[in-house]
Amino acid sequence: MTEHLFEKLREHASEDIYPYHMPGHKRRSWGQLPEAFYKTDITEIEGFDNLHHPEGILLNLQRRAARIYGADESYYLVNGSTGGILSAVSSAIPADGHILMARNCHKSAYHGAYLRNLNMTYLYPPWLQEYDIFDAVTPQLVAEALEREPDINGVLVVSPTYEGRISDIGAIAEIVHKKGIPLIVDEAHGAHLGLSGNFPLNSCQLGADLVIHSVHKTLPALTQSALLHVNGNLVNRRLLERFLHIYQSSSPSYLLMASIDNALQYVEREGAEAFQRFRDMYVEMMETLEGCRHLKFLPQGAEQDIGKLFISVKGTNLTGKQLQENLLKNYGLQIEMASMSYVLAMFTINDGEEAYERMKNALLEIDGRLTKGETVPVSEQYDRGRMIRDGFDGISLAQAWDSAVEQVSIEESKDRYAGDFISIYPPGVPLVVPGEQITEEICRTIWEGVKHGLQVEGIFPEEHKNMAGEKIYLHVLRQGIKRPTPAH
Amino acid sequence: MTEHLFEKLREHASEDIYPYHMPGHKRRSWGQLPEAFYKTDITEIEGFDNLHHPEGILLNLQRRAARIYGADESYYLVNGSTGGILSAVSSAIPADGHILMARNCHKSAYHGAYLRNLNMTYLYPPWLQEYDIFDAVTPQLVAEALEREPDINGVLVVSPTYEGRISDIGAIAEIVHKKGIPLIVDEAHGAHLGLSGNFPLNSCQLGADLVIHSVHKTLPALTQSALLHVNGNLVNRRLLERFLHIYQSSSPSYLLMASIDNALQYVEREGAEAFQRFRDMYVEMMETLEGCRHLKFLPQGAEQDIGKLFISVKGTNLTGKQLQENLLKNYGLQIEMASMSYVLAMFTINDGEEAYERMKNALLEIDGRLTKGETVPVSEQYDRGRMIRDGFDGISLAQAWDSAVEQVSIEESKDRYAGDFISIYPPGVPLVVPGEQITEEICRTIWEGVKHGLQVEGIFPEEHKNMAGEKIYLHVLRQGIKRPTPAH
Repeated sequence: MTEHLFEKLREHASEDIYPYHMPGHKRRSWGQLPEAFYKTDITEIEGFDNLHHPEGILLNLQRRAARIYGADESYYLVNGSTGGILSAVSSAIPADGHILMARNCHKSAYHGAYLRNLNMTYLYPPWLQEYDIFDAVTPQLVAEALEREPDINGVLVVSPTYEGRISDIGAIAEIVHKKGIPLIVDEAHGAHLGLSGNFPLNSCQLGADLVIHSVHKTLPALTQSALLHVNGNLVNRRLLERFLHIYQSSSPSYLLMASIDNALQYVEREGAEAFQRFRDMYVEMMETLEGCRHLKFLPQGAEQDIGKLFISVKGTNLTGKQLQENLLKNYGLQIEMASMSYVLAMFTINDGEEAYERMKNALLEIDGRLTKGETVPVSEQYDRGRMIRDGFDGISLAQAWDSAVEQVSIEESKDRYAGDFISIYPPGVPLVVPGEQITEEICRTIWEGVKHGLQVEGIFPEEHKNMAGEKIYLHVLRQGIKRPTPAH
Repeated sequence: MTEHLFEKLREHASEDIYPYHMPGHKRRSWGQLPEAFYKTDITEIEGFDNLHHPEGILLNLQRRAARIYGADESYYLVNGSTGGILSAVSSAIPADGHILMARNCHKSAYHGAYLRNLNMTYLYPPWLQEYDIFDAVTPQLVAEALEREPDINGVLVVSPTYEGRISDIGAIAEIVHKKGIPLIVDEAHGAHLGLSGNFPLNSCQLGADLVIHSVHKTLPALTQSALLHVNGNLVNRRLLERFLHIYQSSSPSYLLMASIDNALQYVEREGAEAFQRFRDMYVEMMETLEGCRHLKFLPQGAEQDIGKLFISVKGTNLTGKQLQENLLKNYGLQIEMASMSYVLAMFTINDGEEAYERMKNALLEIDGRLTKGETVPVSEQYDRGRMIRDGFDGISLAQAWDSAVEQVSIEESKDRYAGDFISIYPPGVPLVVPGEQITEEICRTIWEGVKHGLQVEGIFPEEHKNMAGEKIYLHVLRQGIKRPTPAH
C-alpha cells in the first residue's frame, strides 16, 4: 500500500512509452551526468499528479509527511526552506502588517517582510558571550514584545538556530496564541525533531501554526528540498497555497520530491534504531571531548540540538578559520562553517562510527598542541546583540531598501544608515538591515571578517579575498533621507 | 581549460574528505534513490562557489552561458523560469508601476505583477480561429498600446508561445526602446533559439533587455533548471540580483546547476550537427504528415518554432483528449498536452529517428480511420481572445485578488467578477484573472474543459474528474465590491 514516488518513476521509465513532452532530455543521458538523473526526471504526466494541485500520489505523500510530523497539513517544497518562509510570512501576516521576528532569522524572513511591506519589530535573543553567538529566543522576550506592541499580526522565531539553540516553542506558542495571532517557526535545522524520543518534540507537536523544515539539512534528502506544515485555524490556507504557488517553480523537480519521500520513508522504517544509534554516538563523542583542555563546546542539554558540534577556539592561539583549515588539510575533515572564534560541524543519522572517530581523534590531537592566546579579540567587540539595537524602525524595511543609496568607504559609513543587508555567510544572518545605523562595532566586525577570510556579503568589491589592502565600500542611504524618529 | 561542474563534483566525491556539513545524507545512498544522486549533491563548500555571490566556477559558467546566448550577463536559475520571470518583472518595473503584458503569459508573470502591485494593461494576441490558440503578439499591437498608455514602465511578451508561435522580437524591441523602457521576453520555450542557423535568433540577439530560458524544456537539462539573461542599461542590475536572491533558495541544488552546464557544453560541442539533424528529421516528418486527410498541423515557417508538433482535430469525430488517449494506449506515445480540439507533442535534439517514425506512423494510421465530425464545438464558442476583453482594469490585480470572495455555483457566477485565477493546465494561461468579468463563454469553456477531462484550475471541488453531475463552484468578488469604471 505504501506508494514510493521513486519506485513509480523508475517503473514509468522502464515502460515502452515514448516521451513527446518535457523535459527536453527525453530521459537520455547526455554528456557527463549519469543516466540515472535523466531516467526518472519527468514533468506532470498522467499518474504523477501536480504539486500545485495535488490529488493523487503527491497528496498522499504530503499527508504521510503530516502524519509523521504531527501536522494538520504538510506541503512538499522544491525551492528550499526559502520558499516556505516566504510563503509563511506572506500568508500569516497581512500586507503592510506588523511582524515580530527574531533578529537572527534567515534572510528569507527579511525578504518576505520586504515583499509584503511589513513593519518590523525584532526580538533580540540573549547573546552567549562565551561563544559569540545568539542564544534561542525566550518566551519572556516574546511576551514583553507583545505587551509593548499590541498591533503585532504574527511572530516568527528560528529554532533550532544554525548553531543548534532550541527555544521553548510550547511556551512561546501559548503566549502568541493568547493574542489570537499565529506563530511561525523556522525549524529548517530541525527536520529530525519529534521523530524519535531521542530528540525534543518538533514545533508542530508544540502548537506552532506554521513550521518549515529543510529536509536536506538533517535528514537524507537532496539539497533544496524542504517541507512546510500548517496547523490550526489562524492561517488562511487559501492564502498559504496561493503563495506556495507564487514562490515555487511551476515545473517542480520530481527528483527533489522523490528524495523527500525517500528520506521520510527511511525515517519511518528504520528511524527508531538509526536515531538511537545517532544519539548514542554523538553523546559518547561529546563526553570524550570533555578531555580537551583548550577547545570549548556548547554543553549538551534540552536547549542544544543533537548533531551540531560547536567548537569554540576563544582564548587559544587559533582562529576558527585556522581550525577549519587544519581539520581539512591535515585530517581530511570538511566542516560546515568557520567563524572568527568558532567552527561548526554537523552530524546526522547518516554518519557512522568512522565520522565520530575521525573527529574525536583530530580534535584531541589539535587540542593537545594548542596554547593559550588571544588570536581572536575578546567578545565585547562582537556583541552583536548590543550593536544592532542601535538600529531604528521608524521606516519600514521596504522603504529603506528601496531608497536611493550611495557607495561610501567603510570609514565614511559610520553612523550612516545601511542601504543594503550586510552579513557573514554562512549562515547569513544580517549584521545590519537596510535602515539600521552602522556603528563602529559593525565596521570592526566587517573588517575582522574580511581579515579572517570569512565571506562578507553586501560589501564592495565582493571579491574581498583578493583585496588585501584595498578599500571596502558599503551602500548607505543618501544623506537627503531624514532619520525618522525612533519608535521607541 | 573548460571547467565542467559535474566533473568537479565527481572529483570532490572521490576524495577522502569526510563531510561534516549539509546536506544531511552525507553523500550516501538511502532507500531507493541511486547513489549517483547523493554522491555529487553538495552545499556551498570551498571551491564550489556560491550561486548568490558567484566569484569562481559558477561565475565562469554564467559567463559561458552569456557568451553562448549573446547576452551581457546570464544567471543560472534553480527555481525554474518561474523564479526568472518573478525577478524580471520585479526589477524591470517599479512597485505600483504599470506593465504592458501579453494576456497569454505564464501565471508567474501575473504573480510578479501581484507581488509588486502593478497596474496591468494586456496585449491580446490575434486569435487563430482555425486552431483555437493565441498567435504571437505583433509589433503593431505593442506600438498601439504604448501610444494609448503613455505611462507604461515596461513590456512583457512570451515567444515562442507554448504552442510555438514566434513574435518579431527585433521589431518589438525597437518600438519598446523608443519609449526608453525595457522589454522582457519569456522565451522559456525557446532555449534552443539562436544556437544554430537552423533556428531563428534568440531575444538576446534581437535586443530584448531580459530574457528567460527554461533549459529543461527544449535542451537536455533537468526539470526546474533555467537561465535569465540581461542586456543593456534599462534594467537596474542591483535590483535584478536582489530579486534573484529573494525568489530562489539559499540552498541551490548543484545537481540542477550541473545539468545546465552539462546541457550547454553539449550544445557547444555537438550542437551544430545535432541541431541540423533535428531540423532535418522534423521537416521530413512535417512533409510526410501533409498526407493526412483529417488532422491539421500548424504550418512551418519563421513564425512557428521547430520542435512543436501541433495537431488539430477540429472537424473530425475525435477530441484532443481522445487523440491523446489513443496515442498512449495503442501506440505507447505520451504527448505533452491535449486540449479539446488539439494536442501538442514536443521534439528536441534528444529525439532520434525512432521518435519521428513512431509518431508519423501512428498519426497516419489514426488519420486513415477518422471521419468528418463535430465532436468539438465550432471555435466561435472558444474565442478566448474576445472573451477576456470583457474584463476591466479599473482596479489592480492585487486589489482584486486580495478582496473578499464568496464561493458561488458556476451558474450564479455569470457577470460577476472573478476572485481567483481560473485556467486550464497545461499550459495554465488564465481564462480569467481576478477582477475580470465572468462571461457566459468562460462558463461554457470551463464546463467543456471539465467534461473533456482537462485539468481546470481554480474551480471547486478541485477533484473534478470524479464529480460527474456535481456542481462546479467558483470564487467571485463579494457583491459589496463596486465595479470600478473601466479605464477604456
